[in-house]
Amino acid sequence: MRCSILTNGTFAQNNCLDFSSTIAAIATPPGISATGMIRVSGKDALRLVSSIFRGKNLDEQESHTMHFGKVLSKEGEVIDEVVAGIFKAPKSFTGENVVELSCHGSPYVLQKVMERLFDTGIRQAAAGEFTKRAFLNGKMDLAMAEAVGDLIHSESKGAHLSAIHQMKGGISKKVKELRDELVNLTSLLELELDFGEEDVEFADRTQLLNILEKIDAEVGILIKSFSTGKMVKNGVSVAIVGKPNAGKSTLLNALLNEEKAIVSSIAGTTRDVIEDVMELEGILFRFFDTAGLRETNDEIEDMGIKRARQKMEQAHAIIYLFDVNEMSAEELRLELEALPSEKPVLVVGNKTDLAGETVDHDAFGEAILISSKKADNLEALQNSLLEKVGLTGEGNDYSHITTLRHVEALKRINQSVADIKGALEMGISSELVIQDIKIALEAMGEITGEVTNDEILGNIFSKFCIGK
Amino acid sequence: MRCSILTNGTFAQNNCLDFSSTIAAIATPPGISATGMIRVSGKDALRLVSSIFRGKNLDEQESHTMHFGKVLSKEGEVIDEVVAGIFKAPKSFTGENVVELSCHGSPYVLQKVMERLFDTGIRQAAAGEFTKRAFLNGKMDLAMAEAVGDLIHSESKGAHLSAIHQMKGGISKKVKELRDELVNLTSLLELELDFGEEDVEFADRTQLLNILEKIDAEVGILIKSFSTGKMVKNGVSVAIVGKPNAGKSTLLNALLNEEKAIVSSIAGTTRDVIEDVMELEGILFRFFDTAGLRETNDEIEDMGIKRARQKMEQAHAIIYLFDVNEMSAEELRLELEALPSEKPVLVVGNKTDLAGETVDHDAFGEAILISSKKADNLEALQNSLLEKVGLTGEGNDYSHITTLRHVEALKRINQSVADIKGALEMGISSELVIQDIKIALEAMGEITGEVTNDEILGNIFSKFCIGK
Repeated sequence: MRCSILTNGTFAQNNCLDFSSTIAAIATPPGISATGMIRVSGKDALRLVSSIFRGKNLDEQESHTMHFGKVLSKEGEVIDEVVAGIFKAPKSFTGENVVELSCHGSPYVLQKVMERLFDTGIRQAAAGEFTKRAFLNGKMDLAMAEAVGDLIHSESKGAHLSAIHQMKGGISKKVKELRDELVNLTSLLELELDFGEEDVEFADRTQLLNILEKIDAEVGILIKSFSTGKMVKNGVSVAIVGKPNAGKSTLLNALLNEEKAIVSSIAGTTRDVIEDVMELEGILFRFFDTAGLRETNDEIEDMGIKRARQKMEQAHAIIYLFDVNEMSAEELRLELEALPSEKPVLVVGNKTDLAGETVDHDAFGEAILISSKKADNLEALQNSLLEKVGLTGEGNDYSHITTLRHVEALKRINQSVADIKGALEMGISSELVIQDIKIALEAMGEITGEVTNDEILGNIFSKFCIGK
Repeated sequence: MRCSILTNGTFAQNNCLDFSSTIAAIATPPGISATGMIRVSGKDALRLVSSIFRGKNLDEQESHTMHFGKVLSKEGEVIDEVVAGIFKAPKSFTGENVVELSCHGSPYVLQKVMERLFDTGIRQAAAGEFTKRAFLNGKMDLAMAEAVGDLIHSESKGAHLSAIHQMKGGISKKVKELRDELVNLTSLLELELDFGEEDVEFADRTQLLNILEKIDAEVGILIKSFSTGKMVKNGVSVAIVGKPNAGKSTLLNALLNEEKAIVSSIAGTTRDVIEDVMELEGILFRFFDTAGLRETNDEIEDMGIKRARQKMEQAHAIIYLFDVNEMSAEELRLELEALPSEKPVLVVGNKTDLAGETVDHDAFGEAILISSKKADNLEALQNSLLEKVGLTGEGNDYSHITTLRHVEALKRINQSVADIKGALEMGISSELVIQDIKIALEAMGEITGEVTNDEILGNIFSKFCIGK
């Protein structure tokens, strides 16, 4: 259901959401721990929590204060001793009255406190509903809200700084600037319409074209930055291919030692598929270990090769690892031919320590020659890998796009800009040009949330944690 | 290493713990969530956190207030936007200055914030160190501190209320009352010593004996209550034994439906051993499903039976379930003989719905006859089960002992009381009686922590979560 699309940048909140309800959720992960936190937000949060709280009347306390007290059962028994933190509207995360209850970190106790909150008429918050309210109450724009989600899921320096950059309004600022310029020109075009038959031009066509060029260029850069942004946010997967004795695990260990940044357990990763995870230059790299691809003699091997090929298809890049002492240049050529041609492949010759002076560098072409055992030339390998996946020379301002939704909107802007330019060149009437500009403005507004609808919001916030 | 045993009830803190350090720990469970909390405690907590915090100077703010701000990296980059909650000594959980940092719930971000705290000289807190400091600073006694741990691990109504009762000083109060009376009498006995040869009796021997009788009785009740307390705290395990067609799973489902209190996932339980978990009268029951014990024809079956017997040995009680339509009285007798004789066994005949009027109640002796399918007579089964494990008629004041440490101290009190009574009866000199009394006083003091040492504290707090 569409809720409201207004190009004047106002979101018709009342049609979309029931703000009258007070919501609650456990905001900390499940599990036994020292502390668990329950967040309550809504007009009546203070009054309703007070009704099950033995201590000061929270409704009468000042904002940003904390109060020790007891949550009581219906029968007046103590369920837990808690600290209630109070944030009064609009000076809270959601912009509403908020109570944060720091309870003991027992799933059982937290559940009992939640049940008591429900007794008062408070309801369970949906995923992302606190942040959604924060957005709808104007506490942050939509791109910033999405960055909160990214921050929570960040697992590497790059993903972390990228989310922080966007939370501070990184992409929003850029898009808003472009949008403001375009809005100004549109109002001039609209003025022309008011004068109807008089054939005046308030909007300087050259200036308009300049702005369109500028939008085109900047949007193009942003769209292009997505391939980096995706890798910064989600990590890079690399399939290490090679014969069993090529030294894959020694290489992984050498890299891990080098970086001293082993990520031992990442939620959701399946250990039997992913071999190792490490951070290079702030980016999370996932290394898959797969079999070679060449020997297709029998059926069972063929199955293994199909699986290896599948893994490679999921990977961003391939490291082909071989033993320089066991491989001829001709054999290497055949091995490399068997690899998927569309992926970046880094060819690495290992065990130079065993070869002594006898290694024929020329024989292996562009291959990087290393010794995993002696940790020799690993830096060259890392740099080449970063280069292969396009992660060098980008600068570190973390101004890249990390969200598919933004890319889709940016592509629509690009298309509209092309349409507008075409229309202007053909001398088409302002009225029709304005229609095209409005499509561009709408796409811009969607990124920051100045223009939005229930479906967009639903898509974004349903991916959030409960309690956020 | 012993730290200090003083029967005057003072614990020599300075010898035991380094209070000068400021400690920090993540206080919420690991995992991605809306919020994660880091707790910092120590003399310099406010100043040190302020040094990495962009926002108000926390050191200058009032106690029990919250402040939005940013945790900065060494390079001045934003690591996270946080809310810092301030508790000033002595009005805090630990009795020291405390800062609670509400961060975004990303394990990565929390780790980065912790690293920054360590940069300032704050160190990682040991397990239970916050609660240990709370105890040493006189914010709670030792039995109350232990109850905090019990509360966090509570998984049932009984365990929860039992922990709350003890947190409010349940057992401590009782033990302190007895101790105070004994201390008063001891000082009278000590007065007698001062008069040396004069052979006066300030302490009324009858009154002393009365108090000893009272201690004996109350301590006896407390020791006895441990068998209940253990079950209330940790749950009751019940092995359901019976032939494959006896209807074990139907029975479990019927009981679960009856109670509508399925505990679907309990941390640490192995699902392939424990079949089902449910709450009866506030107590957690774990039901194991095991094979019958009689058919020992072949080797493989024999192994199965060994495993079943092992499971039964771990259980508090056994339900022997049989199909009333398939079992003769004689066969039942043989089956029951094969069960371990030292466990309470509840004999339950199932499928009365199929038997119609033909069930010979007398044939099955004390067996409870039910129909799992029709949920018939399940209440009788539940009541009998509670009775079999000794969980009826205890009242619900949750004044039972739940901690082995307390039982051991109580047993020493009991022994000392017997020694004192013996000494008094034999007319042994006050000097020697006082020695025995001091042993009793020490054991009493150990429960509440008025008397303690590093080893006791280490044992207690090392079982706590990090961050508690």
